Amino acid sequence: MAGLRILLVAGTHGNEINAPWLMDQWDKKPDLIKTNDIKFARVLGNPAAFKAVKRYIDCDLNRSFCRDLLDDHLLETYEVSRARELLSLYGPKGSNPCQIVLDLHSTTSSMGSSLVVYGRRPSDLALASLIQARLGLPVYLHEGDKSQHGFLVESWPCGLVIEIGPVAQGLVQGRIVRQNQLLLEGYFAEIASLKAGIFNYPESLVVHRHLGSIDFPRDEKGHINAFVHPQLQGKDWHPIQKGSPLFIDLNGNEVQYDQDDSPVPVFINEAAYAEKQIAMSLTEREIWPVRDSWKLALKSLIH
Amino acid sequence: MAGLRILLVAGTHGNEINAPWLMDQWDKKPDLIKTNDIKFARVLGNPAAFKAVKRYIDCDLNRSFCRDLLDDHLLETYEVSRARELLSLYGPKGSNPCQIVLDLHSTTSSMGSSLVVYGRRPSDLALASLIQARLGLPVYLHEGDKSQHGFLVESWPCGLVIEIGPVAQGLVQGRIVRQNQLLLEGYFAEIASLKAGIFNYPESLVVHRHLGSIDFPRDEKGHINAFVHPQLQGKDWHPIQKGSPLFIDLNGNEVQYDQDDSPVPVFINEAAYAEKQIAMSLTEREIWPVRDSWKLALKSLIH
Repeated sequence: MAGLRILLVAGTHGNEINAPWLMDQWDKKPDLIKTNDIKFARVLGNPAAFKAVKRYIDCDLNRSFCRDLLDDHLLETYEVSRARELLSLYGPKGSNPCQIVLDLHSTTSSMGSSLVVYGRRPSDLALASLIQARLGLPVYLHEGDKSQHGFLVESWPCGLVIEIGPVAQGLVQGRIVRQNQLLLEGYFAEIASLKAGIFNYPESLVVHRHLGSIDFPRDEKGHINAFVHPQLQGKDWHPIQKGSPLFIDLNGNEVQYDQDDSPVPVFINEAAYAEKQIAMSLTEREIWPVRDSWKLALKSLIH
Repeated sequence: MAGLRILLVAGTHGNEINAPWLMDQWDKKPDLIKTNDIKFARVLGNPAAFKAVKRYIDCDLNRSFCRDLLDDHLLETYEVSRARELLSLYGPKGSNPCQIVLDLHSTTSSMGSSLVVYGRRPSDLALASLIQARLGLPVYLHEGDKSQHGFLVESWPCGLVIEIGPVAQGLVQGRIVRQNQLLLEGYFAEIASLKAGIFNYPESLVVHRHLGSIDFPRDEKGHINAFVHPQLQGKDWHPIQKGSPLFIDLNGNEVQYDQDDSPVPVFINEAAYAEKQIAMSLTEREIWPVRDSWKLALKSLIH
């Protein structure tokens, strides 16, 4: 085994261009980001969509890593072919095998700098707890959503997604680029500590566990009929209560949250999610003890 | 002559979706916007691009209203064909002739609610002065830019562009929709006053006259090499001085404004303009007396 190698993916969605822009700058100046001698590969996830400044060409690359799509060799959409190519290049059994992947996204939602974990793989949770302890990032745990699967990171033994926002699609903003840069440096520093046998595990991991998603109010034709309430717009990570306004239409009709729990909304009004019938997702904030089984799972990947 | 009719165009750029969304709501509720019995037509500028949530399909519709493109009947790009169609439907000699056009745009720049006037047509300046006096909007006077022409409004006897931002492309935000709605109501109220012979002309019109545009710093391959300085991002309409920071790269190298005048930047970091080599435009704030010749030109269109 060639030892630990990290895969960094930028531009999995072709119109999220801040991380690709940072990668381009990094190409020109190799010491731009301290990597503490950790081996890594970096790749532009969806080159054709990046060129077209579109999220995707045929279908969402970050929903194309399903076993059934990858194995269906009659299926030749651009993104499924690209998913196969990325795996053959950088997958755990690829020609340049990587064990851990970091997939860098941006969002029009006010997510700040945040981590997304898909499901409860022990190695993901271990790494998320280390990054959270070092950088203080909130973690969105996406699970139990049958309508969405085939995420890129799931095809590697360990993988996290970074989401940084708000920023428009197709727009480079200095603040967002800097957040990517700081995050990458913290990430490499943490991997380097692990590799050196220094374990900075916190007692617990704070997760925002996915409960479900809410669609916009729609008319009989399926057109969106109200917008995110101005009091909610930009308030990702702030809990809502019964009676909190969610949407309002131009006649002043409000839709309020009507349940008794106090969920935490995330991805409020992400531009790309309207087509997925998602106006926001709701989560529950939970504090989980960091388990030894997580640490062992991550340790087995690091050497 | 059938009398005054206004043309409202939304979605001239298919990914600027707030005005089209408002139009869709208005379709369902005809009294949503007070129009004071002014006759009008409304149209989705670029339906194919709107469907694709792209600025355009083949070329920018709002650069396609050049005489040479319109007259070149061997040229069949989607947008030039659409420009011909809009003129045959709603042009001053069209089947439903309109004399005045309002073209509703949004921008990722922090332009607030603003008016754009192309050149110095007396009727445009008259109408801009009335709208400015009523609503207080800043006016960007675009002229003398040889690299950009063929704007939609130039094919009607009188026409203004609305630019509202910041908002991401492909994203409906309540604040932006409301700004469109308020602006339309003020616009119709002003046209109605004019038609009733009530002239609310101010003494003067404040314009921000286009001086030129500044491109991003680029490397030898033409790739953008620095981003808009965080101190400048979002500061549209705020004058800059010699020494004001414009751009900064990831090594901390700043590009500063180095001239002795104090121009006012607009369209700072508009996502769609990077391809046009425009990081921002610079303007000079000027106060022009409202001339009788402007008033006469507008009056001749209103009855």
